[in-house]
Amino acid sequence: MSRPAHRRPEYQKINKDLFVLTYGALVAQLCKDYEKDEDVNKYLDKMGYGIGTRLIEDFLARSCVRRCHSYSEITDIIAQVAFKMYLGITPSVTCNNASRNEFSLILDKNPLVEFVEELPAGRSSLCYCNLLCGVIRGALEMVHLSADVSFLQDRLKGDKVTEIGITFLKKLDEKKYRRKK
Amino acid sequence: MSRPAHRRPEYQKINKDLFVLTYGALVAQLCKDYEKDEDVNKYLDKMGYGIGTRLIEDFLARSCVRRCHSYSEITDIIAQVAFKMYLGITPSVTCNNASRNEFSLILDKNPLVEFVEELPAGRSSLCYCNLLCGVIRGALEMVHLSADVSFLQDRLKGDKVTEIGITFLKKLDEKKYRRKK
Repeated sequence: MSRPAHRRPEYQKINKDLFVLTYGALVAQLCKDYEKDEDVNKYLDKMGYGIGTRLIEDFLARSCVRRCHSYSEITDIIAQVAFKMYLGITPSVTCNNASRNEFSLILDKNPLVEFVEELPAGRSSLCYCNLLCGVIRGALEMVHLSADVSFLQDRLKGDKVTEIGITFLKKLDEKKYRRKK
Repeated sequence: MSRPAHRRPEYQKINKDLFVLTYGALVAQLCKDYEKDEDVNKYLDKMGYGIGTRLIEDFLARSCVRRCHSYSEITDIIAQVAFKMYLGITPSVTCNNASRNEFSLILDKNPLVEFVEELPAGRSSLCYCNLLCGVIRGALEMVHLSADVSFLQDRLKGDKVTEIGITFLKKLDEKKYRRKK
């Protein structure tokens, strides 16, 4: 996760509502296409993965983030820079284990469900925003970080908060990611 | 198209790239679902219509646009306020007939196709951005304006510019839309 600091392409900012409603149309279409919630979830994740692998290049160029030296730093960048840039929110981050490779992003607000009152009838296992997990997974993969990403809690399912869990699967290659002096 | 001037809800601005890539995933899914380009185009238009009918409420609240007194004014607002707000661009507007009910939005840049190099193989009649036509149509319908909206030219099809045609179908109800004094 590094980039020469001088590159910072300008980008147009837009209101998110057209995106949020278009995303809703995509989920509705997949619910038409796939009978089982699990299949919709998988497909959203797969789509997101493809998007993440393409988005990362621009993200690195635009965010000008520096090399990260820990999973904790990486998760903070996802929360504070990437979520802010693409969804206009900043989830809070918690670390969930002693070996510091499991994290949660806690979303107080989730703009993607702003127009969604409840899950569609008969779709109680749908992870409506599963595309996001795929995007994070795909983007991380492109910077050589393997991770499991999934929703641990979801307000749309009656949970108190929306929580995305990220478990980094491989140790960082210290040599590769060591601080440049 | 009016709204009390004091209502202007804050909205978060976001980078459009996640939206643009998600839209690409939606179009790809529809191309899987429907064999004929015409069916994909129709479906995108239909989805867009539904989105437009929901988007207009927020648009009016956020843009604080005043009552419009001509089709020309309405088209200017679509180009200068709505496109700017939701896509970060401002198309130029031309009026195409003497009775001043046919207009074109000329898009020099089209952010929705930023990640698209060409139309998918065998999809030469696809109107990739047809969702936009539906959105405009749906939003206009909600302010009691009937219109035909379609792509007249498309850079993705080799045209020099991308051009969306809007033909207003009914005369404005002068009484309804007259200036309040």
